[in-house]
Amino acid sequence: MTEKGLLIVMSGPSGAGKSTVIGKLMKIRSDIRFSVSATTRDPRPGEEDGVNYFFRTREEFLRMIGEDAFLEHAEYVGNFYGTPARPVDERLAEGWHVLLDIEVQGAAQVLQKRPDAVSVFLAPPSLEELERRLRGRGTDTEEKIAGRLETARRECALANNYTYIVVNDDADKAARELDAIITAESCRSGRKLESMAKGDLLS
Amino acid sequence: MTEKGLLIVMSGPSGAGKSTVIGKLMKIRSDIRFSVSATTRDPRPGEEDGVNYFFRTREEFLRMIGEDAFLEHAEYVGNFYGTPARPVDERLAEGWHVLLDIEVQGAAQVLQKRPDAVSVFLAPPSLEELERRLRGRGTDTEEKIAGRLETARRECALANNYTYIVVNDDADKAARELDAIITAESCRSGRKLESMAKGDLLS
Repeated sequence: MTEKGLLIVMSGPSGAGKSTVIGKLMKIRSDIRFSVSATTRDPRPGEEDGVNYFFRTREEFLRMIGEDAFLEHAEYVGNFYGTPARPVDERLAEGWHVLLDIEVQGAAQVLQKRPDAVSVFLAPPSLEELERRLRGRGTDTEEKIAGRLETARRECALANNYTYIVVNDDADKAARELDAIITAESCRSGRKLESMAKGDLLS
Repeated sequence: MTEKGLLIVMSGPSGAGKSTVIGKLMKIRSDIRFSVSATTRDPRPGEEDGVNYFFRTREEFLRMIGEDAFLEHAEYVGNFYGTPARPVDERLAEGWHVLLDIEVQGAAQVLQKRPDAVSVFLAPPSLEELERRLRGRGTDTEEKIAGRLETARRECALANNYTYIVVNDDADKAARELDAIITAESCRSGRKLESMAKGDLLS
């Protein structure tokens, strides 16, 4: 039987470097799949249903909420976004680790529904460094930067709700730490005993 | 300030391959120290006080028990053996991870005194494989092998008392898993928040 994969919930403020670190992690391990979100917003050019998002009508989305089909969902500037449970559970059953890159409120919803999920907060080394990175992008207005910093401060205050904190002072090191967390969690005695041959050593 | 090291408690039946795996782990990481035990038995030729053991008289040992100076201790064929707490705590404060290679009763004593210790059970892939390995050594009598297997069965039944189980079907893989466990445990949010700069991001 295939060993069940881990559900990994990852959050971190804008500017913490999540996409870089996740990109490096995916080069280290080939046993991770991303969760695909559902949304009611219109597809943008080039976006594919089931790849970038599951595109759903408002009616379909509301029906799925009614059926408790989401691990988490939220409304954002007039559109719904959510993580459908079924595709996640299918990947997990196939033995894939499934990574949810998700903001703090969504993460809290997922952890409530799936207390066995592995939760990781990716933190910038400091708020000063985060500010430097956000300014370095050169894309945001002063007002937008101030807003992002305020959000980051609020999000970082919730880091202790996550099992692990990875500080991204070096993206390669951060990716190696994520890799180690996945390997270690697979060795947790509860999971290991579940996946070991029954009737033999540890039964 | 130096980050405090981890106390790592490791058990596993005779024949699980602990010394091989630990040897490989020490080649991967240079931040681990072994705990040195105290004993009342006489030094053997070549053994050094403070390196192989702390050699103590029976009176000294009993006084240390009275002072609660041990993380664990036991009497074995007329001699006392124990793990003095002070040298362990000194290494931890210096930032070293300290590895205790210890049998299951001793491990239970340590985990009671130090619930924040990281506990790992090194398991053979199966009792059949363990038997094969013990016979392969060619050093033990049938009676001794039967005794070791019976002890192994009893010890393996306690594996669920450890946080992690590493199955030694491949010593290199087992060492990498131990390495990952140490890295991951250092990222636990409780520990990370303790060691992060106060007054900044996550306070």
